[in-house]
Amino acid sequence: MNENEIVAKLKKHFPRIGDDAAIVDGQVITTDMLLEDVDFTRAVALPRIARKSLAVNVSDIAAMGARPAYAVVALGLPEWADVDALIGGFAEAAREFAIEIVGGDLSRAEKLIISIAAVGTIETRPLLRSGARPGDRLYLSRPIGGSAAGLELLQRGFEGAGYAQRETAQSAIRRHLDPEPEVALGLALAAIDEVTACIDVSDGLSTDLHHLCDASKCGAEIERARIPVFPDLASLGVNVANAVLHGGEEYALLFTASMREAELSERVGRPVYAIGRVTGGREVTLDGQPLEAQGFDHFAK
Amino acid sequence: MNENEIVAKLKKHFPRIGDDAAIVDGQVITTDMLLEDVDFTRAVALPRIARKSLAVNVSDIAAMGARPAYAVVALGLPEWADVDALIGGFAEAAREFAIEIVGGDLSRAEKLIISIAAVGTIETRPLLRSGARPGDRLYLSRPIGGSAAGLELLQRGFEGAGYAQRETAQSAIRRHLDPEPEVALGLALAAIDEVTACIDVSDGLSTDLHHLCDASKCGAEIERARIPVFPDLASLGVNVANAVLHGGEEYALLFTASMREAELSERVGRPVYAIGRVTGGREVTLDGQPLEAQGFDHFAK
Repeated sequence: MNENEIVAKLKKHFPRIGDDAAIVDGQVITTDMLLEDVDFTRAVALPRIARKSLAVNVSDIAAMGARPAYAVVALGLPEWADVDALIGGFAEAAREFAIEIVGGDLSRAEKLIISIAAVGTIETRPLLRSGARPGDRLYLSRPIGGSAAGLELLQRGFEGAGYAQRETAQSAIRRHLDPEPEVALGLALAAIDEVTACIDVSDGLSTDLHHLCDASKCGAEIERARIPVFPDLASLGVNVANAVLHGGEEYALLFTASMREAELSERVGRPVYAIGRVTGGREVTLDGQPLEAQGFDHFAK
Repeated sequence: MNENEIVAKLKKHFPRIGDDAAIVDGQVITTDMLLEDVDFTRAVALPRIARKSLAVNVSDIAAMGARPAYAVVALGLPEWADVDALIGGFAEAAREFAIEIVGGDLSRAEKLIISIAAVGTIETRPLLRSGARPGDRLYLSRPIGGSAAGLELLQRGFEGAGYAQRETAQSAIRRHLDPEPEVALGLALAAIDEVTACIDVSDGLSTDLHHLCDASKCGAEIERARIPVFPDLASLGVNVANAVLHGGEEYALLFTASMREAELSERVGRPVYAIGRVTGGREVTLDGQPLEAQGFDHFAK
């Protein structure tokens, strides 16, 4: 069974599952679990792991156009983990994301496990994956590809020649380790009636675009030349097309709106990037060729 | 560091942590994580593990006097785990406990991890650990000791001679594997003004009584002869005093009220068991002797 098959099973039993977060009583709730040797290694400092764990949950709230409110944190703690560093990291991250940690659970474990559930408040209306309509423009909130490049550099090491390359490498690694959830943008988009659907890019552009199209029962055509690319990515010796199209853990927002790029950018007070159109069929294409979902699948063999 | 020291650190950073669940906006929220080889083994059927994971979260909601509303479930799935059996178990348990599973997260993991966050609705007022006052009676909701005995029987096996013994053993094992959260009682207690504090017996009577007294800044004196004991526990060859006083995972409610046993039982429509009194000092005693917290500590060496 791959992840899609498992999720299909889950949806059959639990029909509310499907968006980045579930909507209940004017709130949204989401959960994400990060595991040692799956989502991070011991080489990463604990406060950074704590911050990222909270950030990925906050990003789900951002994708729903809601405001982070509170969270609970369940920890599986191995002997090696410095509890002070971890707790301090959560305290600092909670301040940064303006979310209150109100409860938790502690267990002894062989490897570090961080499982968070976070609740957000809907201020105007929730953004769903399912609202895209043919003719809408497809948008990305910022350049992508940096996170996948940063992960590759962490894994294989980076012997950068010049100063500029080292700077670019560090910046890509930060994009991977220190995600920036788009909370302010999500709230702004929710307040604009012309915005029709939204998802965060956690599994990769190709996969998350398929998720959005599946939920909206539509297709999409995007243009490679219009996708904003993380600065100087080509200088790092990574597969740029792969990082941009399929790299996960970006936490940029991917959204649709019946509004032109210049107008929408002005309404939200920052650049957003039109990368294509929503179509009436069910195909997802890149420059006219079919674009398969090739992002991360936890359960692929 | 033991669990109390870690919890003290957590409370410093996150002042809302402390009760069985946190109170936010007329709701309570709690989280509990269950781990393979810590909280259960592969020998237990997956639907039973799913039910227990949900039950322990529901018990935290019950201890707050709230009604279970919805939950999110994060799963770390090893190769051996039959996803169908697990999901089916969650669906059935959610129906049993009248709680809706609205979201989830899936990861590949080496061992099975189940992390749940559950939200409940406060119908009258929340029950806290901190409201006990000197002179209040201390109550247990039902006989205890069965869960610890059941765990011991699971671990060492049970070669019971007669039919009655085998029945008792099976019943103790069910008490351990299939917890019964006291939702209806919690809701009833919350509606009675004379009920002053409540906690569920998850770490063991001695430990949870200390938790309640610490939160209420009071002491307690309880009588061994008044503690209701799981039926026929002595026949199983387990240490009865140990199972009753320190055995965890009972999920009975331990609560305080300025009301006599007969009157309170009548008000809630079922027996509850007065086991002692709240005192003005800070000592916790059993038949006049100090009673130490000797329940389960995840982080004890």
